Amino acid sequence: MNASSGGSSASADRRARALLTRIAEPDRELSKHVVSDGAVRAVKGLRDGTLKVRNALHWQARVAGARPERDLEAARACGARFVVPGDDEWPSALDDLADLDDEYASVPYGLWVRGDLDLRAVFARSVAIVGARASTAYGEYVAAEFALGAAERGWTVVSGGAYGIDGAAHRGAISGGGVTVAVLACGVDVAYPRGHSALIERVAAAGLVISEWPPGCAPMRHRFLVRNRVIAALTAGTVVVEAASRSGSLSTANRARDLGRHVMSVPGPITATMSAGTNALLKQPWASCVTSAADVIELVGAIGDDLAPPPEVPQDPRDDLDPVSRRVLDAVPVRMAVGPARIASAAGVEIRQVTRCLGALAARGLVMGTDSGWRLPPKPTGPRGGP
Amino acid sequence: MNASSGGSSASADRRARALLTRIAEPDRELSKHVVSDGAVRAVKGLRDGTLKVRNALHWQARVAGARPERDLEAARACGARFVVPGDDEWPSALDDLADLDDEYASVPYGLWVRGDLDLRAVFARSVAIVGARASTAYGEYVAAEFALGAAERGWTVVSGGAYGIDGAAHRGAISGGGVTVAVLACGVDVAYPRGHSALIERVAAAGLVISEWPPGCAPMRHRFLVRNRVIAALTAGTVVVEAASRSGSLSTANRARDLGRHVMSVPGPITATMSAGTNALLKQPWASCVTSAADVIELVGAIGDDLAPPPEVPQDPRDDLDPVSRRVLDAVPVRMAVGPARIASAAGVEIRQVTRCLGALAARGLVMGTDSGWRLPPKPTGPRGGP
Repeated sequence: MNASSGGSSASADRRARALLTRIAEPDRELSKHVVSDGAVRAVKGLRDGTLKVRNALHWQARVAGARPERDLEAARACGARFVVPGDDEWPSALDDLADLDDEYASVPYGLWVRGDLDLRAVFARSVAIVGARASTAYGEYVAAEFALGAAERGWTVVSGGAYGIDGAAHRGAISGGGVTVAVLACGVDVAYPRGHSALIERVAAAGLVISEWPPGCAPMRHRFLVRNRVIAALTAGTVVVEAASRSGSLSTANRARDLGRHVMSVPGPITATMSAGTNALLKQPWASCVTSAADVIELVGAIGDDLAPPPEVPQDPRDDLDPVSRRVLDAVPVRMAVGPARIASAAGVEIRQVTRCLGALAARGLVMGTDSGWRLPPKPTGPRGGP
Repeated sequence: MNASSGGSSASADRRARALLTRIAEPDRELSKHVVSDGAVRAVKGLRDGTLKVRNALHWQARVAGARPERDLEAARACGARFVVPGDDEWPSALDDLADLDDEYASVPYGLWVRGDLDLRAVFARSVAIVGARASTAYGEYVAAEFALGAAERGWTVVSGGAYGIDGAAHRGAISGGGVTVAVLACGVDVAYPRGHSALIERVAAAGLVISEWPPGCAPMRHRFLVRNRVIAALTAGTVVVEAASRSGSLSTANRARDLGRHVMSVPGPITATMSAGTNALLKQPWASCVTSAADVIELVGAIGDDLAPPPEVPQDPRDDLDPVSRRVLDAVPVRMAVGPARIASAAGVEIRQVTRCLGALAARGLVMGTDSGWRLPPKPTGPRGGP
């Protein structure tokens, strides 16, 4: 069942998902039910006690009093929206989280989003730059330089909005005239850390502020590690700039590794506490040593060109497409050519509509017809087509 | 023909090799002839013009005036000796140089050696610590700490005797009460660099000072890169502590890689010129990031335990053996058991002598008899058996 295909069932799905973000923490078992049976049935199962998951009793006690309409209204009031799977702007990279085999294997029920940009387009070419709160001048310099360089190359810089490396990364991206995203462990209307309230406003203006938790939620301790999996999943790779031995930013690196994303680490003096974690990462065969923004983009760019449709942020030609055309475009494979029936089934769109859309997309150079069907053109086009 | 099996032919071989170190630079083509036909025939071929190698004419002009006896005498006068392949203390690791496929593929004709220790025993557990002359306080601290830690664990620290990282490595090893070796690009009696003349004396007292070039030779520019291949070949691995982008110590790392030795690099600030080369190394899949002496020994120790006979420096039980027993011991394989005939052929020793030696070696626990023949005991014994 595609929850977004009908108006009222779509809004029921959205309400159910908003409710889940309020009453339940991101949870592997619950997420599995939501992915397979839909959010409405999961909420119903919680309500009537038929959904058997580990924390069900705890959540059942909270479901009766939940008022998702209020959260959706509060979001609108602070200029935020709630984006759910099935929405055109849902970043499908998040669905990879279902494939993890640990407690972090949960696709967000939905994302609360502040900022005008299209969520999916923003993350098409994005890289995470994260690190210690108790950073040094060296680390802050590196984070700002890398973020500036990534922004100048048209890449979105994603971080956690925290003091130290995160803040330097957001500021560097903004100073480079780029898009930056803060993924928070609290509501998108909560100024945390308090000293970053102005910075977070600037991030919302220059990009997006997003969260799995509804407006008003506090940044609880365990939410930071849970949040880190979203940073890892949304981006083509994670750069750790400075980290102590047991730093939380290493958890972002571990999730990135598990998700098959690039893990990058900045070397530092072996005498510096704040480089102990990054130098330790460099001992891992799955982590790459990066010493410049160019290094970073060279690594993540290869993935971007392989997996993503020609990414154009923020002037993506996709921005001008109607929702159905966009869905059709998303269903056209990168390499292999397929027929309209297969595209129709993948897109969840009527085959007549598909045929019409493909013609218009081909006229704009976004798809190409071959003897064996339709596929994406072999090379990205446009001035920002490659790193 | 084994040049060391007879007294006069051995001294002819030694004289021919001493002559070659005087008249010819280390050279791939000439080395090949010396390995296959012996030094005496190579010198004869140079003398009478029948040896066809690229630089033959140049060397031919020098061969007539060469007086190897004088160099051997000059060596004795400064407390040095000339060690050649076939000598018990020749480090067979040097023979690996013949397997390189570039201009560095030349086994030294012989080594001029100052210091009392047995050359082969000293290198059985050895690691190179090298780097920039124009080092920083950070690099010198790291080099000294790593060398101290390696020395404390019973490992020989090998370096090039230069200012900067090399000097710090030698000093660190001496302060740790360990053995250290300076491999020079000039004669072992030449104080170069001049400011290190006292240090080089201390190295000779605490270990060895060695060179491919005879006494009195000047440190010519090209000799440093040529010398680096010997540092790489003699050791289980090379640690680069600090290096600019085009540093000569990276050539040692490249030779170590080509020889299948461990290449280790110390991370540093990406803003530091003297860490540009080491950070670049960390981008290579064949280089390991090391942040402590323990890291270094863990890496090279694995190779040591695999390839080397139980290494005991300087109180090696082998030190008490007579030359023939030592040669027999060296010919016994580590894992596979073989019969006395095979050992006799590998050792270049009469089979009757082999049988006698094996019994004595087995009584001391240095070899073990099995149903299928003789092999080394499975585990190193003694207090310094493993890292």
